[in-house]
Amino acid sequence: MKMAAIQPFVTADKERNIETALRLIAESARGGAQMAVLPEMFFCPIDFDLFPKYAEPAGGAAWQAMSDAAKQNGLWLVAGSMPETGEGGEIYNSCFVFAPDGSCAARHRKMHLYDVDIEGGTRFMESESVTPGSEVTVFDTPFGRFGVVVCFDIRYPELFRLTVDAGAEAIIIPAVFNMSTGPLHWELTCRARAVDNQVYTVGCAPARNEALSYVPYANSLVCSPWGEVTARLGTEEGILYTDIDFAEVKKVREQLPLLKLRRQDVYTLRLN
Amino acid sequence: MKMAAIQPFVTADKERNIETALRLIAESARGGAQMAVLPEMFFCPIDFDLFPKYAEPAGGAAWQAMSDAAKQNGLWLVAGSMPETGEGGEIYNSCFVFAPDGSCAARHRKMHLYDVDIEGGTRFMESESVTPGSEVTVFDTPFGRFGVVVCFDIRYPELFRLTVDAGAEAIIIPAVFNMSTGPLHWELTCRARAVDNQVYTVGCAPARNEALSYVPYANSLVCSPWGEVTARLGTEEGILYTDIDFAEVKKVREQLPLLKLRRQDVYTLRLN
Repeated sequence: MKMAAIQPFVTADKERNIETALRLIAESARGGAQMAVLPEMFFCPIDFDLFPKYAEPAGGAAWQAMSDAAKQNGLWLVAGSMPETGEGGEIYNSCFVFAPDGSCAARHRKMHLYDVDIEGGTRFMESESVTPGSEVTVFDTPFGRFGVVVCFDIRYPELFRLTVDAGAEAIIIPAVFNMSTGPLHWELTCRARAVDNQVYTVGCAPARNEALSYVPYANSLVCSPWGEVTARLGTEEGILYTDIDFAEVKKVREQLPLLKLRRQDVYTLRLN
Repeated sequence: MKMAAIQPFVTADKERNIETALRLIAESARGGAQMAVLPEMFFCPIDFDLFPKYAEPAGGAAWQAMSDAAKQNGLWLVAGSMPETGEGGEIYNSCFVFAPDGSCAARHRKMHLYDVDIEGGTRFMESESVTPGSEVTVFDTPFGRFGVVVCFDIRYPELFRLTVDAGAEAIIIPAVFNMSTGPLHWELTCRARAVDNQVYTVGCAPARNEALSYVPYANSLVCSPWGEVTARLGTEEGILYTDIDFAEVKKVREQLPLLKLRRQDVYTLRLN
């Protein structure tokens, strides 16, 4: 299957960001993509003051625009993430997935929030603005079963194992790493999760925008189940096309049966 | 603390290999090392026919030579691994750790065995010769608490988490990656385990010896808790000196509290 990871130039302007996303989704479809992926917070910069301002409930205008875009372009759309207003007014960092008929196939609410509070240094507490999700997310397509996690979720091998145990053979990671953790850990963790779990990983980020207070590292990339980076973008807006071959997942898992050789007699990882 | 990861040129000759190890341990001590590390199967090539031939029980001649070497050189010795004859004649792939007084401070029996059986391809079944261990291994030194895993154990994020939950702040990995998985996965997994768990990782391998049926990838290396490779060897015999700074572990864990931010309300990883 042909996938397009979209790396849009996200600004502080919500409407402009949605227009950019719609333009690039349409371009992906023209390029032959059967699935398009957007990055974390594709219409809202990582700015906790903007989250409540830009948040919408599921079914809101932005959500509907993405549903319509999936249908109009006849593709699967992993709509990065958006600030989602929950039932009680709380805000989630949510990835909605739309099928080519416009229906919502899945929702992943970011499970691990980015809380950093260094004495005398950076203070960045996502949990003050965002409520975490508690569910492992997979969805089925005619091509195979996909998993979704959001950004800081990538730090947790546990969540990847649980997503793989739920049947995922490719895991999509809408994310916005920054200029300090990006160079150190973005490619490394995308590759490691792919190797350890013998899945494709698709890390989808926004383009670098130096005008934002939180500057995205960009560098969207795709890793094979062998952990090789098979495709990547730089810092500019663009679309990364890649082929996801589910037969390759099966082949790798047969050749090096890592998942089978876990010592589940010794240890157990489970959802509570 | 100053650590020496020893990368010896391992041959098919057991006695010669032990002499090589003793020579390099003494050289490490002269170089100021407070701890020396040997690679997996430092006196026995990865050859399942040789394992039973070279195996010894704990307290045997090779074990005693390592205990004596720790004492004579006044250092901690993580004695890579050896084929250990168990109580019932079974063989383990065991790492013994000796304190500077010659006492045995820890034993890790490789928990995950390397079983690959590709139809029409490579067949390599460690479990036909080796019995796996079932224990997580840490040991205390005046410098801090260390963990030990052996080679294929590195593939399993679960074991690293359990070792870290047991208090390890540096994890030593005697290993022999080969020429196919080495270039792809050796550095990647050493770095990823360090980053995910915010520990030092010390990957200790034998030198490249093309004459062996299983050719070691070599490339011993040390990764910081930020996941940077701070020191590495090439393919030749040598000693890799490195400083392990336990204060750095604390600092990294304060700056980016990955372990604290696990969602242990959502998932549980535990020993059975």
